[in-house]
Amino acid sequence: MSVESIHGIIGYTITPFDAEGRLDLPALGKSIERLIEGGVHAIAPLGSTGEGAYLSEEEWNTVAEFSLNQVDRRVPTIVSVSDLTSAGTQRRARFAEEHGADAVMMLPISYWKLSEEEIFEHYRVVGDSLSIPIMLYNNPGTSGIDMSVDLIMRIVSSVDNVTMVKESTGDIQRMHQLNLRSEGELPFYNGCNPLALEAFVAGAKGWCTAAPNLIPDLNCQLYSAVITGELDKAKGLFYRQLPLLDFILRGGLPSTIKAGLRLKGLEVGAPRPPLSELNEESCHRLERMLSDLL
Amino acid sequence: MSVESIHGIIGYTITPFDAEGRLDLPALGKSIERLIEGGVHAIAPLGSTGEGAYLSEEEWNTVAEFSLNQVDRRVPTIVSVSDLTSAGTQRRARFAEEHGADAVMMLPISYWKLSEEEIFEHYRVVGDSLSIPIMLYNNPGTSGIDMSVDLIMRIVSSVDNVTMVKESTGDIQRMHQLNLRSEGELPFYNGCNPLALEAFVAGAKGWCTAAPNLIPDLNCQLYSAVITGELDKAKGLFYRQLPLLDFILRGGLPSTIKAGLRLKGLEVGAPRPPLSELNEESCHRLERMLSDLL
Amino acid sequence: MSVESIHGIIGYTITPFDAEGRLDLPALGKSIERLIEGGVHAIAPLGSTGEGAYLSEEEWNTVAEFSLNQVDRRVPTIVSVSDLTSAGTQRRARFAEEHGADAVMMLPISYWKLSEEEIFEHYRVVGDSLSIPIMLYNNPGTSGIDMSVDLIMRIVSSVDNVTMVKESTGDIQRMHQLNLRSEGELPFYNGCNPLALEAFVAGAKGWCTAAPNLIPDLNCQLYSAVITGELDKAKGLFYRQLPLLDFILRGGLPSTIKAGLRLKGLEVGAPRPPLSELNEESCHRLERMLSDLL
Amino acid sequence: MSVESIHGIIGYTITPFDAEGRLDLPALGKSIERLIEGGVHAIAPLGSTGEGAYLSEEEWNTVAEFSLNQVDRRVPTIVSVSDLTSAGTQRRARFAEEHGADAVMMLPISYWKLSEEEIFEHYRVVGDSLSIPIMLYNNPGTSGIDMSVDLIMRIVSSVDNVTMVKESTGDIQRMHQLNLRSEGELPFYNGCNPLALEAFVAGAKGWCTAAPNLIPDLNCQLYSAVITGELDKAKGLFYRQLPLLDFILRGGLPSTIKAGLRLKGLEVGAPRPPLSELNEESCHRLERMLSDLL
Repeated sequence: MSVESIHGIIGYTITPFDAEGRLDLPALGKSIERLIEGGVHAIAPLGSTGEGAYLSEEEWNTVAEFSLNQVDRRVPTIVSVSDLTSAGTQRRARFAEEHGADAVMMLPISYWKLSEEEIFEHYRVVGDSLSIPIMLYNNPGTSGIDMSVDLIMRIVSSVDNVTMVKESTGDIQRMHQLNLRSEGELPFYNGCNPLALEAFVAGAKGWCTAAPNLIPDLNCQLYSAVITGELDKAKGLFYRQLPLLDFILRGGLPSTIKAGLRLKGLEVGAPRPPLSELNEESCHRLERMLSDLL
Repeated sequence: MSVESIHGIIGYTITPFDAEGRLDLPALGKSIERLIEGGVHAIAPLGSTGEGAYLSEEEWNTVAEFSLNQVDRRVPTIVSVSDLTSAGTQRRARFAEEHGADAVMMLPISYWKLSEEEIFEHYRVVGDSLSIPIMLYNNPGTSGIDMSVDLIMRIVSSVDNVTMVKESTGDIQRMHQLNLRSEGELPFYNGCNPLALEAFVAGAKGWCTAAPNLIPDLNCQLYSAVITGELDKAKGLFYRQLPLLDFILRGGLPSTIKAGLRLKGLEVGAPRPPLSELNEESCHRLERMLSDLL
Repeated sequence: MSVESIHGIIGYTITPFDAEGRLDLPALGKSIERLIEGGVHAIAPLGSTGEGAYLSEEEWNTVAEFSLNQVDRRVPTIVSVSDLTSAGTQRRARFAEEHGADAVMMLPISYWKLSEEEIFEHYRVVGDSLSIPIMLYNNPGTSGIDMSVDLIMRIVSSVDNVTMVKESTGDIQRMHQLNLRSEGELPFYNGCNPLALEAFVAGAKGWCTAAPNLIPDLNCQLYSAVITGELDKAKGLFYRQLPLLDFILRGGLPSTIKAGLRLKGLEVGAPRPPLSELNEESCHRLERMLSDLL
Repeated sequence: MSVESIHGIIGYTITPFDAEGRLDLPALGKSIERLIEGGVHAIAPLGSTGEGAYLSEEEWNTVAEFSLNQVDRRVPTIVSVSDLTSAGTQRRARFAEEHGADAVMMLPISYWKLSEEEIFEHYRVVGDSLSIPIMLYNNPGTSGIDMSVDLIMRIVSSVDNVTMVKESTGDIQRMHQLNLRSEGELPFYNGCNPLALEAFVAGAKGWCTAAPNLIPDLNCQLYSAVITGELDKAKGLFYRQLPLLDFILRGGLPSTIKAGLRLKGLEVGAPRPPLSELNEESCHRLERMLSDLL
């Protein structure tokens, strides 16, 4: 499966826990089946939504291997492999490659802010140890590091297998610059839900989102409408789903998506503390939103 | 001429000075003719580009009256009337109304930051003294005040003649919220040049821009392509003009637009110090950009 | 009177208006007398507190001339002369010099953000036209422009009569850097009320403040305690007046100082709209604070 | 050893690695001895400087136990126990208590931003499982979370063993507010090196710093001078060491402190990638700074 096929709606998985806080793999399997049945064009385990940062190494391995087996190459799988250390990131990336990932996603998470040189080296070291493509991921909101377009272009042009960029700042000018500087050759993906319509219009090849856990049809229809050039239809679809997209972003994706899956009949447990479950009032609001969208 | 007609490309005028720094009205007349010949759908004198903040009251009056006479209702004219004091803003707004403006634009410029209550009262006091519509203008980059969507909606619903909103934060989420909360009923306009494509796609009724002083055809064609639903064409037109849009924004609109008009054969003098003329290197860059776009 | 004498508590005047919003010069005279009787070491008319930005040119002239006459060289007078244009700033600065100002204060207020080169030229042009010293003033909160320490040092070393710096960012590291880079030779002044204690400890030569309109004794005692090296006493005095210092900063200096003067028996009217009078609840709070400090 | 004894200079340890990147415990032992010989009043292992965030759980345990044994209650030891999950933080905190820590330090590090309720619960859960005091630590620069003074006061008043606060925003107003709201009863500590002088003057009980690895005498003398009320001496000592304090902060504490220890004859290896060693030019600059301070 070639990297060219990574496009459209890229669905992020949650990581289900049971009442004791242990991995619930059967629920994970069901949530992946729902995404595929919902029509997503790719699956991304262990990302922000998947609480990858909150798992032990052993848990991380288990979820990565189980997810890859469950997807079983029906669609491309992009595994998020970010870790605070370069060695840890490299280990996860190799594990993902060995177990069949089509690509890995890599965010330079930080405790100490990294210099541009440190970020560059981080990508180089991991890139040199892999054969599959890397999707560079910029998300200062979670990582504490904002990579400039200059730095991203430098990494893309120097590290062979960094071939895709996921941009989650929510600032569409970043996508414009990636497009202009690469003369349209660098595939970029949108990771900011409320920017879905405009990012596609600006040329994003895909939308990385946890929303298909809840409203896969609306997500896929939006993508189709842009592809077929039906601008009014796309605009209508976007504004229809926007309140939900805003809600899941503001409420925290693990909390809101897990609450939404429960409302839709799949019990996936609570996020891992200090992340908390959605409170009752917000659950009611989410329930109303979801029923309005049916 | 009804306010419903304010849409499309709203061209901002510069304010020409002669070598001694005095108003050059003949050059102002020529620059307005160029905008109208270029096909703009409305004209906006004395805005940010027009150095309205740097004029004496007498100069301001002269430019307002001259501009309104020159346009002579061939297209709607929206006069920017912002002043630090409420009394000064009211005076300018009445002057504009008396001399035939179709609408006024009003930005709460500040020395001391204003509370929400102070901003509300500022709009109420000016609104109560006028019969023509007010376009509320949000631009924290120049005014030092960022009006929340909540505050804007409160003003719009309480002050009768605040009927349009110009948003220049560059954050498209503000436009989304204005659209959602007004259920599509509140006309909003984009004041951030590099957001031109996406703002139209998100439903902006117009694009407030100084760019038509230099590239009116490309601006108007972009608007037409979105209106007719030709998404690929719109995207192509947008990326073609984007480097110039970025350049004039970063270089400061009075400096870059005045330099560009000189390159295109109309001498309009320098901006008023401390604003400076575009330096030689940037002029050469602008010249190359403009010739690439012919 | 030499510039060396500018030190200690530099008291800012308000600009009183009558019920019709016109200048109330007798009240201005009384407020200046109170400051001098309160023991301030210098007087600064037409600053932020003095609503200098909200006056017409004619009003500005009147207040400047009246204030200089009233002080009559009993203490040094530093007139704030900031205007959006370089020509306007120059005119005010010359007027102040001709009418006997010991120094002028100059803040690069902005509508369009200024480049470093534009700011430098702005100071150079005004400096070249004056014989008295200029206190460079950095206050991004009101001016919209933050001058780096690099830029400030460049201006100080290039423009002869820029000989003092007033820093109002509230970031004490700026003062540290001014002190280190000038090897202790550049007099710097603190313009952030809640930083009064630490700025003096770090070497500030003076505290530019509107607080002496209300609590001149506490302000002057704090300065004395630092000068005499009574650290515990200084700390006690600082924490005692800090709630009031926080209150007047957050409430806006023109509104809170004018309300406080009324509570202390001097009617100076309301600030000029859109600035508003302090609301009733805040007035009561201010009254309690002031009586606690007697 | 009571918590009352936690005051003065609180020295942070680095975590030495050998050429293969494994823990170098003998070097750790030597670095701790240097701190104690240097006169620090307390020792803090596994903090930001100690690369606590970059260690495996097994390494973390080893360093915690070794450090506590090495200090052997000669001075109080405060172990940093922050982890992304509440369970992990609790585990580390209990481990530290069981191995003899006098207190633990706890920073709410984040991947997903935490709500105030989540932060509160995080402290409550960990606090309820411990008998020793917790120093609440606010450092948005590394943790991505900025706790308001309101939230801090709420945690301090509700969670019994949160009895101290370390503030590292660099904004001295936070310390003022902690002092005012607790009426001087809440011990607060400064974690921002270039704020050392002013924080002590404002009432900080201690300075949490890695600087004593390099210049323990200057750090301790500054503390003594403030305690004895010698303001001029304190100011002189502060400005003397400030360039070094600025340098180690900007260059990243693990990189700069490890380079400095090497220059002073103790080899402690490199920081763990992606953190990098100090480059050659910066090492030369550091060497000059250190020899200027001898």
